[in-house]
Amino acid sequence: MPTLSVFTDVPMAHKLEGSLLKSYKQDDHPNKTFLAYRVCMAEDGHPWVSPVVKKLRSQISQDPSLNYEYAPVMGMKSFIQASLELLFGKHSQAIAENRVGGVHTVGDNGAFQLGAQFLRTWHQDSRVVYITSFQKELYGLIFQDMGFTVHEYSFWNPKQMCMDPNILINVVKQAPCGSVLAVGSIADCKLTQSQWIKLMSIMKSKQIFPFFDIPSQGFSSGDLNEDSRILRYFVAQGFEFFCSQSLSKNFGIYDEGVGVLAVVALSNQHLLCVLSQLMNFARVLWLNPPTMGARIITSILCNPALHGEWKHSLIRVVENIMLIKEKVKEKLRLLGTPGSWDHITDQKGTHSYLGLNSQQLEYLVKKKHIYIPKNSRINFTSINANNIDYITQSINEAVLYATG
Amino acid sequence: MPTLSVFTDVPMAHKLEGSLLKSYKQDDHPNKTFLAYRVCMAEDGHPWVSPVVKKLRSQISQDPSLNYEYAPVMGMKSFIQASLELLFGKHSQAIAENRVGGVHTVGDNGAFQLGAQFLRTWHQDSRVVYITSFQKELYGLIFQDMGFTVHEYSFWNPKQMCMDPNILINVVKQAPCGSVLAVGSIADCKLTQSQWIKLMSIMKSKQIFPFFDIPSQGFSSGDLNEDSRILRYFVAQGFEFFCSQSLSKNFGIYDEGVGVLAVVALSNQHLLCVLSQLMNFARVLWLNPPTMGARIITSILCNPALHGEWKHSLIRVVENIMLIKEKVKEKLRLLGTPGSWDHITDQKGTHSYLGLNSQQLEYLVKKKHIYIPKNSRINFTSINANNIDYITQSINEAVLYATG
Repeated sequence: MPTLSVFTDVPMAHKLEGSLLKSYKQDDHPNKTFLAYRVCMAEDGHPWVSPVVKKLRSQISQDPSLNYEYAPVMGMKSFIQASLELLFGKHSQAIAENRVGGVHTVGDNGAFQLGAQFLRTWHQDSRVVYITSFQKELYGLIFQDMGFTVHEYSFWNPKQMCMDPNILINVVKQAPCGSVLAVGSIADCKLTQSQWIKLMSIMKSKQIFPFFDIPSQGFSSGDLNEDSRILRYFVAQGFEFFCSQSLSKNFGIYDEGVGVLAVVALSNQHLLCVLSQLMNFARVLWLNPPTMGARIITSILCNPALHGEWKHSLIRVVENIMLIKEKVKEKLRLLGTPGSWDHITDQKGTHSYLGLNSQQLEYLVKKKHIYIPKNSRINFTSINANNIDYITQSINEAVLYATG
Repeated sequence: MPTLSVFTDVPMAHKLEGSLLKSYKQDDHPNKTFLAYRVCMAEDGHPWVSPVVKKLRSQISQDPSLNYEYAPVMGMKSFIQASLELLFGKHSQAIAENRVGGVHTVGDNGAFQLGAQFLRTWHQDSRVVYITSFQKELYGLIFQDMGFTVHEYSFWNPKQMCMDPNILINVVKQAPCGSVLAVGSIADCKLTQSQWIKLMSIMKSKQIFPFFDIPSQGFSSGDLNEDSRILRYFVAQGFEFFCSQSLSKNFGIYDEGVGVLAVVALSNQHLLCVLSQLMNFARVLWLNPPTMGARIITSILCNPALHGEWKHSLIRVVENIMLIKEKVKEKLRLLGTPGSWDHITDQKGTHSYLGLNSQQLEYLVKKKHIYIPKNSRINFTSINANNIDYITQSINEAVLYATG
């Protein structure tokens, strides 16, 4: 008698992501190009690693004094401390007041998972989350799985080809009281000082809870303080919030899951209560976060000379990003591609909107084997001397022949 | 006007674990001893690391060809493959039939988290889990959080001072149909061949789903195949199951979260469906597992010479465990401690029941500053030349003066 499988009723899952990458991998066209990688690429087409990380990785692996015991549930204390000082500033008043803390998480996904679990339990007034559209596929699902209603929004105004500060203000205006507002790429918001004040005032009156995402501090402006300036402004204005801080990208340690869920509270007492709850969630989720990446990063951040080397490597990355963007714009200008391409250089960071419509994107994917996400937000560091001509010529063709 | 904290209603969490370790750390008695560590200790009192791991860690960190890009959601393929071959045997028929697979997880906790998420969604007939008592604090909570009713059981019979094979049979007899049976330390079950057959027959008729835990293959007998023999027997008998496989302990890489959730299905088709669902859960949980530990382990497992070195290091660990247990027994005999202490050497592995009652344990903790869990299951590798006399003399005193 054949036994019946326990798994009989389990269907093949609908894949949540990766179809674009899968299509790219299956494609055997010689010029195929993937412009949707999450990681910063070096000029040689490989994932970027800060040179100082390479040095430390080797040093740490040969340190006989290291103890490879399980990390505590909250993670490495020295790593959390160094990461929070990076985010909020070494002389942050909130840190001095002991009302800023963090949990070492398994990457930024872990930080969102942990924060969402907390909010599901302790922020029950509203189960509504507003999330930046490019974060939706990654983090929207986490909230959705926990029973939140997830709305997406985008700073990008495809008609005006620019980041539109009004979008964020409109989002908080229409959001129900107590909603969670997840904000990715805060450095791209482009709000003026008075717009920020207006936004904060609405958020306060509606008790909207901010959940920031700082995935690669330093990659927007090359200046670590500048890239978290807005976050510090929120602290100064008396906001309580969560912030997912990833250190995978700005150090080039993508495969070790180095994240922190930073917590800002109004008092040390509130902070300790929140951290104690988060600890219990982390304990059930992964019990002990991985430490290799955290060890490397802590060693760099706590040593002034290495810290300096790392900061210089960030500046070089940002200079390289700007150079690629300038070159793309210049090549499109030389090709006579219709339209202004200033929006390319107006945006900061590794990932920026190319500003193409759906027909043009389809043309690029189907005819030119250039894989671009549907929102046209591409990783500019994937463009290098080997593929820039093919990419810009293809964009030119797409604009000329595929405008719907 | 002072702003009201969003976190006002968040209370301090009840700590889920760690109170014993915390008390130990706060204790300043010169002879304080902690016998509840999860990790295998070397004779020098530090966490054990297989010597071959030290070599590989250094080699890998200096390999310029390595790519530190995010690992796929399912993890490192080569690592999963090598781990499954270790668990089920290189020539496993089930592997050849493509009905065994796995997901690379963040440690064993991650494997239980992932498996429990799957069972909550796809095994809805029964929300009842039976779990080995020493696993309850760690993994019972995972199931409990997902709405399962968690019952604990123990192989240890405190009256007869031995592992009692009838306990497992009684558990499956009384368990409702479709329950999940989590089995830790399967090598300790001590069932005879005919008892296993009886157990399996009841499990099949009641569709009880096994969720094995192999936390440290090789640490029971020193023989990798022997330590997973029962598991392979379940495969051969046509069972479908999950198995949490940790490689943290038997390599000595505790801080990198190197786990696998192994899945055995009746057919490749069922396996692929289950893996596809698990992939979506893993994606939401941590997105990319950490790779450092997995890289080291894969390099060792795939190189026959290194594999041999590692196996030898396991044998030395097991010899050392047996030596410590023999010494403890001998010292108690010389002290004239009442009772037979054969149960110490009858049990295998790093962690074994000391067989003391609650008054005796309280005496050890309170009067002698020796920290032992309530179930009296201690980590024998925490006993070394420096503390063995103090520990055995204290046990002797506890037995003489604290028998309730």
